Amino acid sequence: MQVDGQAYRTIWLDPDSGHTVRVIDQTRLPHQFVIKDLRCLDDVRLAICDMTVRGAGLIGACAAWGMYLAALEAPDGSFESFMAQAGRTLTATRPTASNLAWAVQRMHDALSAGGSPPEQRRIAKDAAQAIADEDCAHCERIGQHGLALIAEMARRKPGQVVNILTHCNAGWLAFVDIGSATAPMYAAHAAGIPVHVWVDETRPRNQGASLTAWELGQQGVPHTLIADNVGGHLMQHGLVDLVITGADRVTRCGDVANKIGTYLKALAARDNGVPMVVALPSSTFDFSIRDGLTGIPIEERNPDELRWVSGVCADARPESVRICPADTSARNWGFDVTPARLVTHLICERGICDASESGILTLFPEHA
Amino acid sequence: MQVDGQAYRTIWLDPDSGHTVRVIDQTRLPHQFVIKDLRCLDDVRLAICDMTVRGAGLIGACAAWGMYLAALEAPDGSFESFMAQAGRTLTATRPTASNLAWAVQRMHDALSAGGSPPEQRRIAKDAAQAIADEDCAHCERIGQHGLALIAEMARRKPGQVVNILTHCNAGWLAFVDIGSATAPMYAAHAAGIPVHVWVDETRPRNQGASLTAWELGQQGVPHTLIADNVGGHLMQHGLVDLVITGADRVTRCGDVANKIGTYLKALAARDNGVPMVVALPSSTFDFSIRDGLTGIPIEERNPDELRWVSGVCADARPESVRICPADTSARNWGFDVTPARLVTHLICERGICDASESGILTLFPEHA
Repeated sequence: MQVDGQAYRTIWLDPDSGHTVRVIDQTRLPHQFVIKDLRCLDDVRLAICDMTVRGAGLIGACAAWGMYLAALEAPDGSFESFMAQAGRTLTATRPTASNLAWAVQRMHDALSAGGSPPEQRRIAKDAAQAIADEDCAHCERIGQHGLALIAEMARRKPGQVVNILTHCNAGWLAFVDIGSATAPMYAAHAAGIPVHVWVDETRPRNQGASLTAWELGQQGVPHTLIADNVGGHLMQHGLVDLVITGADRVTRCGDVANKIGTYLKALAARDNGVPMVVALPSSTFDFSIRDGLTGIPIEERNPDELRWVSGVCADARPESVRICPADTSARNWGFDVTPARLVTHLICERGICDASESGILTLFPEHA
Repeated sequence: MQVDGQAYRTIWLDPDSGHTVRVIDQTRLPHQFVIKDLRCLDDVRLAICDMTVRGAGLIGACAAWGMYLAALEAPDGSFESFMAQAGRTLTATRPTASNLAWAVQRMHDALSAGGSPPEQRRIAKDAAQAIADEDCAHCERIGQHGLALIAEMARRKPGQVVNILTHCNAGWLAFVDIGSATAPMYAAHAAGIPVHVWVDETRPRNQGASLTAWELGQQGVPHTLIADNVGGHLMQHGLVDLVITGADRVTRCGDVANKIGTYLKALAARDNGVPMVVALPSSTFDFSIRDGLTGIPIEERNPDELRWVSGVCADARPESVRICPADTSARNWGFDVTPARLVTHLICERGICDASESGILTLFPEHA
């Protein structure tokens, strides 16, 4: 997507060196646009842990590139065991996201054909690039399927703006490009359908305020920042036509793990007859789990992410402020699970389906 | 309640001067405990507008003391018209809260018996003091009624902690003393029932993080700060036994206007079979309105309250940081309406009732 008029992906292999992975440092947005170099497996591990990169598709792609960097580091004599350990290291960085384990497994699968270490390194590079390219292609198709939904909404209220609420950032910053939840918004905006996006700030890390607002602004999509508490009030007053979020893991029965607070928005959507749509590439499905509430591990993060808020002062200096008493303890779960019964549709690259096992299997019969 | 071991109310008339109203400056908490003097009607108006004082009961009591200060200012020759204008000024400071108009009306009623300006000033002083004292007495009774509910919960899980979730601050800081939502917590804690409170931070002004966490800490009640997004996840996992919030206005049919986001917690409580309890003194009822969604005006505040977050830096210096791009626009509604159907009980000083017209009228038959 565009940043100050120039096209970027969130991650790419530096073509000159061939062994440096470059990413947009998302901890610095929206106040600074900084490209960060990742040169080894440990750089990648850290970048995922400290959320330099985050988001379902992007951490998958980043893990894939991490496996490539690991292949460059792996000693010829113990290539296989080094790569197995690298896969375990990357998978352990974040517990909830599906794409991480999916990408690592796909890299292992690519390497399983064997070959000399130099051949394996070439295979790893091609496989990581393929994962990144496929992520873009899938997001683009999600956008086209979602566009049909939004166009239908627009037909029902001719001449009026279609109001979409989103939670967290499932934008191009959460993928390699385009995004999942944002893909239909970008497609509708490009198609000339008047859309307006309510952007949940998404406490405690404020990915809505710092990332979604920034990327929608860069693409010129009309949007308004709101507190996470506001969505229910908006829906009660007819100010939301559609909720679209991304997902970090979706079970074979359609339960959706996504950023903490998504469940509350899904409840409000149901209570007010607003469609609740979840957009995800197939790599985010976990076909091994049925019940999301008992089956999906929920990451708990450092409570200081809640107790301290980062931003810039009036003089543009980066600063963090504590918002509670110094001795107040806090807990900080990163995700919640929205039961399938509250989800109106899933949009993935293969099309739109019900959030149910039968619905999902119509698009993914190979998992029956 | 106790502040560093010393008993305070949130508002009182300075006994030495007799014409200075003293309040705890809640915009400075939790980082600084500062007492502010209000010496005239305009000081009171500003203190309510800028949220030096806030909370249902406290803005009522503050408006009452504002009417007393106005009576001191009122010229003898135009006493009545000055007081009428003072009442309009104070009522206009915040649109959603019931207690404001209620307290102003009660002051007008007290003054309606007539008398010379000096007599009227004495009447105004006594009436304001009575409103403040009654607020304390009502909160104390709310605590005793709510204690019965919590004790019943505790009996059902012997030896285990009763987990209560609250949103915003309906604590003693929101009243003259004791609080509405916190009154049952304080009563249970004093009675030796093990309670633990999940404190929603309550964006955008963070009254949970800055006020509720502070006051619970000062009274030694175990509590944990969470993001507003977390409550649904906790309820899904059996970690909340009871939700107790306050209210800014409750209709005769039991619809509850309270801090924005309360509706989302009520939806989650209903979805998980958790009782949703709203605690309020009778002064918060608006018996003139039936439907809260169409009848209660919802205050919209400065969007910078969302775009900028205030706190203290690591070196304890107060600072504000912007969390979104400089050109991002925001909207900031302060309250939402929880429909009566989602409220399990109302607790007021007269007892516990259903959130329905018939339930409310059993306690308030004079409004039938």
